[in-house]
Amino acid sequence: MPDATLLEAFPAPSDTPFVIEHISEEFTSVCPKTGHPDFGDVLLRYQPKAAKDGGVCVELKSLKLYYQSFRNEGIFYEAVTNQIRDDLVRLMDPVWLQIVTIWKGRGGIKSNIRADHGDVPAHFRGR
Amino acid sequence: MPDATLLEAFPAPSDTPFVIEHISEEFTSVCPKTGHPDFGDVLLRYQPKAAKDGGVCVELKSLKLYYQSFRNEGIFYEAVTNQIRDDLVRLMDPVWLQIVTIWKGRGGIKSNIRADHGDVPAHFRGR
Amino acid sequence: MPDATLLEAFPAPSDTPFVIEHISEEFTSVCPKTGHPDFGDVLLRYQPKAAKDGGVCVELKSLKLYYQSFRNEGIFYEAVTNQIRDDLVRLMDPVWLQIVTIWKGRGGIKSNIRADHGDVPAHFRGR
Amino acid sequence: MPDATLLEAFPAPSDTPFVIEHISEEFTSVCPKTGHPDFGDVLLRYQPKAAKDGGVCVELKSLKLYYQSFRNEGIFYEAVTNQIRDDLVRLMDPVWLQIVTIWKGRGGIKSNIRADHGDVPAHFRGR
Amino acid sequence: MPDATLLEAFPAPSDTPFVIEHISEEFTSVCPKTGHPDFGDVLLRYQPKAAKDGGVCVELKSLKLYYQSFRNEGIFYEAVTNQIRDDLVRLMDPVWLQIVTIWKGRGGIKSNIRADHGDVPAHFRGR
Amino acid sequence: MPDATLLEAFPAPSDTPFVIEHISEEFTSVCPKTGHPDFGDVLLRYQPKAAKDGGVCVELKSLKLYYQSFRNEGIFYEAVTNQIRDDLVRLMDPVWLQIVTIWKGRGGIKSNIRADHGDVPAHFRGR
Amino acid sequence: MPDATLLEAFPAPSDTPFVIEHISEEFTSVCPKTGHPDFGDVLLRYQPKAAKDGGVCVELKSLKLYYQSFRNEGIFYEAVTNQIRDDLVRLMDPVWLQIVTIWKGRGGIKSNIRADHGDVPAHFRGR
Amino acid sequence: MPDATLLEAFPAPSDTPFVIEHISEEFTSVCPKTGHPDFGDVLLRYQPKAAKDGGVCVELKSLKLYYQSFRNEGIFYEAVTNQIRDDLVRLMDPVWLQIVTIWKGRGGIKSNIRADHGDVPAHFRGR
Amino acid sequence: MPDATLLEAFPAPSDTPFVIEHISEEFTSVCPKTGHPDFGDVLLRYQPKAAKDGGVCVELKSLKLYYQSFRNEGIFYEAVTNQIRDDLVRLMDPVWLQIVTIWKGRGGIKSNIRADHGDVPAHFRGR
Amino acid sequence: MPDATLLEAFPAPSDTPFVIEHISEEFTSVCPKTGHPDFGDVLLRYQPKAAKDGGVCVELKSLKLYYQSFRNEGIFYEAVTNQIRDDLVRLMDPVWLQIVTIWKGRGGIKSNIRADHGDVPAHFRGR
Repeated sequence: MPDATLLEAFPAPSDTPFVIEHISEEFTSVCPKTGHPDFGDVLLRYQPKAAKDGGVCVELKSLKLYYQSFRNEGIFYEAVTNQIRDDLVRLMDPVWLQIVTIWKGRGGIKSNIRADHGDVPAHFRGR
Repeated sequence: MPDATLLEAFPAPSDTPFVIEHISEEFTSVCPKTGHPDFGDVLLRYQPKAAKDGGVCVELKSLKLYYQSFRNEGIFYEAVTNQIRDDLVRLMDPVWLQIVTIWKGRGGIKSNIRADHGDVPAHFRGR
Repeated sequence: MPDATLLEAFPAPSDTPFVIEHISEEFTSVCPKTGHPDFGDVLLRYQPKAAKDGGVCVELKSLKLYYQSFRNEGIFYEAVTNQIRDDLVRLMDPVWLQIVTIWKGRGGIKSNIRADHGDVPAHFRGR
Repeated sequence: MPDATLLEAFPAPSDTPFVIEHISEEFTSVCPKTGHPDFGDVLLRYQPKAAKDGGVCVELKSLKLYYQSFRNEGIFYEAVTNQIRDDLVRLMDPVWLQIVTIWKGRGGIKSNIRADHGDVPAHFRGR
Repeated sequence: MPDATLLEAFPAPSDTPFVIEHISEEFTSVCPKTGHPDFGDVLLRYQPKAAKDGGVCVELKSLKLYYQSFRNEGIFYEAVTNQIRDDLVRLMDPVWLQIVTIWKGRGGIKSNIRADHGDVPAHFRGR
Repeated sequence: MPDATLLEAFPAPSDTPFVIEHISEEFTSVCPKTGHPDFGDVLLRYQPKAAKDGGVCVELKSLKLYYQSFRNEGIFYEAVTNQIRDDLVRLMDPVWLQIVTIWKGRGGIKSNIRADHGDVPAHFRGR
Repeated sequence: MPDATLLEAFPAPSDTPFVIEHISEEFTSVCPKTGHPDFGDVLLRYQPKAAKDGGVCVELKSLKLYYQSFRNEGIFYEAVTNQIRDDLVRLMDPVWLQIVTIWKGRGGIKSNIRADHGDVPAHFRGR
Repeated sequence: MPDATLLEAFPAPSDTPFVIEHISEEFTSVCPKTGHPDFGDVLLRYQPKAAKDGGVCVELKSLKLYYQSFRNEGIFYEAVTNQIRDDLVRLMDPVWLQIVTIWKGRGGIKSNIRADHGDVPAHFRGR
Repeated sequence: MPDATLLEAFPAPSDTPFVIEHISEEFTSVCPKTGHPDFGDVLLRYQPKAAKDGGVCVELKSLKLYYQSFRNEGIFYEAVTNQIRDDLVRLMDPVWLQIVTIWKGRGGIKSNIRADHGDVPAHFRGR
Repeated sequence: MPDATLLEAFPAPSDTPFVIEHISEEFTSVCPKTGHPDFGDVLLRYQPKAAKDGGVCVELKSLKLYYQSFRNEGIFYEAVTNQIRDDLVRLMDPVWLQIVTIWKGRGGIKSNIRADHGDVPAHFRGR
């Protein structure tokens, strides 16, 4: 089941603001209603706090293991998206953070969910 | 014929604002003028009200059945778009909502119709 | 329901062999098991008999109306494909004919069905 | 020759603002300098006035016939674009309207012409 | 109307066999049934006879003018394809020649017509 | 774990030979070496025996459930491919059958495995 | 060598503001350092002054000949871009004008240069 | 190891502001954790100071050699991005500068890092 | 002007047969009729003789300089293709060799020319 | 430097013939002439001997490490391709094996090298 304790962080490498994107193309969980697996991409985009303010970044391999912990969890699209946002905000306390989940079609309908934390710049909002 | 009573909603999963997109690639209705079928995609994008304010989301399977209820209806592109917007606004009373219908060509002309409700953020307007 | 009497033919325009393809991107029928609509493309490819041998070609608008007659029919992928092949062979008695149906995904699985009549040239077989 | 009397309108279906796009991929006219045919796409995008204010929409088939009336006309890219804008503005008196013509290459140069009427929203301007 | 006298030829530049393709993306004629214009690509592929055997090639600009002469002709897809093949065979008497016409959709159906002359090599047959 | 008893078959709908493709884009199993999940597409292509000879086809939903039974199995690419081929051959005893598995990259290397049964026609071999 | 006297202009066709794009996909010059040819696309985008204010547009064929005059000139990417902007501004004195040159790779690095004149609207700036 | 002394600059060619992009598709360094090579694209975008203010541009070949100096360096994605930005800012002191690194997938996750210097215009921010 | 003396060869690296392709995307010559430049890709594909039989390969940089020598030559598509084939056959005396030139459109018509030497394997013939 | 001792094999999983493809998109070596790095894809395709005949398959991670051992080696395209083929044939003694290397452009020319061992089936030859 989803396990936020898998997540690890490392200190942000500079005081200058920058933006990090990690796009996982191999996310899977289980639909709690039908029991069938769901498949999707997870886009994480965030600006860490400056190094001097104690800013941290999520470590890539730990992020992968955290995503894998959803594999056999029965959980809806919206809940996945909100939980990932909340777990990563708790880990990093970033300047801002954005999660977009992009799900393969079910019954001819494809779904995307976007959840923001903090003041996501306008130029990233609709992407 | 189009049947809004097929639509079901579930409570929004959080108080934090987020945005949901459902893209149906299997919409069909009938042209009231020629009697020939029309085919198109329907993009629904909206921000539900916060959970604490009684916000709700449309349930995915009910949305699919609602779309299927247009299958043998004689109805113009513009009317389809406005009706879907109005039915979904009535169901969810969302912060904002956007419908874009993207129709396959007729006589060498492809048509897209965009109908908004509430204050759709600028970064979603032209997409 | 599927109605082969809608199909019309016109005399082949020459004695020289040639090949005709009609690709319909707007085919829909109904799954007899779930009652949900199926959507797909239908590729028809054939070589009419020579004009001097009484060869005929299917008229394009009648083909479209014939395809539309499957709209509310509950019928499986394989049966659709075989029926279209048989109806068109009966209409035209062509040198050879090939039907490929290309279905949108159901439950994460996309299906294609190929049905041949007569001696389809090798270079069209796997396409 | 271009014939604006072919254009027909129907009443806008609602008071709520919405946006209509019609993309013709089969436009052709004749270069007045060389006598060779020009080929292009014509994108029409507009917001009709509200129904209660007498808003109207251009009827799709009449638009197609109007475009066909340029077929044998000797006329430059810029003049085509301006004339279509002016004829449609005269027909519909819309809130705003945008024409983009996208021409196939001539001598290794492709051309696009954009002509606006009224206050086209920023998010449509550069598209 | 289609005018084969516009076609000009020049002597094949060598005795070594080679293959020439000309793909016109700007072909238009008129549907004799509806009076609406048809648009398509025309692919010409051929092997000229060797220079020593009096082989000739079609001149590119004359080919363009010949294609333009179909602009206002009411003529079916199949007849266009056969006529172009026959006119070019008459002009060049090539080792083999192939015409493929690729038409934009009508009523949701796209059509391709292939007409061969002589012994078109197998590796070009299905392309 | 992989469970071939989930597979169901139905009688082939005709005596005329035809070819069926099912492409699953949502296959996942687990690497037995690293414990990390593997993701891939599974292409099944086969020709059932004729109806009169007792030919059968695999039922689509049962195929999906069978594929899902690999979800938490530790198994190599090659073994997945061979096992699916063998299980389906046992179920259907088809004229010929082909499995192609197309795996997402691992360490910068993408892998495809092809396993055939019977006399797969040459035009499908390399696809 | 680059020859701005090749450029010709014609009067702007209207007083209503509009925007013109010409995209040349066949630009070539010579690297002054290595002597090797450079290849690229040149995008010209501008808004002519209104007709009543003496606005003019660059004539398309003269633009092509002007571009061809760079063919054997040894000149850097940045200088090409600035010179084209300056020559066209001098010719047309437009409301605003933008040149983007898009160069094929050299040593694994692709380069784009953007040069503006006047107040290029924000929605064209980053395109 | 990364060697900023390889970088060379030349005077900006004009006082008019313009924007330069160099996209390297052949960047490689080494992951300090695993010892495996990383591969990515590096996008550099900047506006040099005006010529009269002593503005300079980075010379293309020296940029290539500088990028090659990372080839056998063990260094994280974030550090690569920040170091390139800092080295190029030190070389050119530009009006603004942006580095985007686009890395090939590791363990099913693709990463992009964006680092800005100065006031990067909004229309380049999210690209 | 085209200069075959620029071409250099090096000994084939093995006795085992193998196939080499070089695709130049930056070829340009001049149309002898109009004086306008032509642009195209040149695909060279060949099998060198075995090392033990004195087989040689064309050196890549010399090939580039040879292609550049056509830059200001007035020469037709067909002649370019035949000359490149003949010059390279003379240089290398390969087992077989194939030249395909792929030209950008002129007057809406794109052209490809294929010229073979020796027994080009069937699977390369139509590509 | 290239180190074939890094390669490891495991027993083929069955007696039934099957085909394995591994596509590495992250290959790099060094041009021995210029000292600049080369980048390319390496496609390996082979049919192992049957298990009962002692057939083996190359282990994926060892293949990756073997490819990485070329990273700082000065070696030509043709030699890379032949060496990889020879090293893998020595390791596996397969029924047949094919290496295709696909190199990024140098000086505007892209190169592909194909080297076969044994009787590669015709349908894989030109791919």
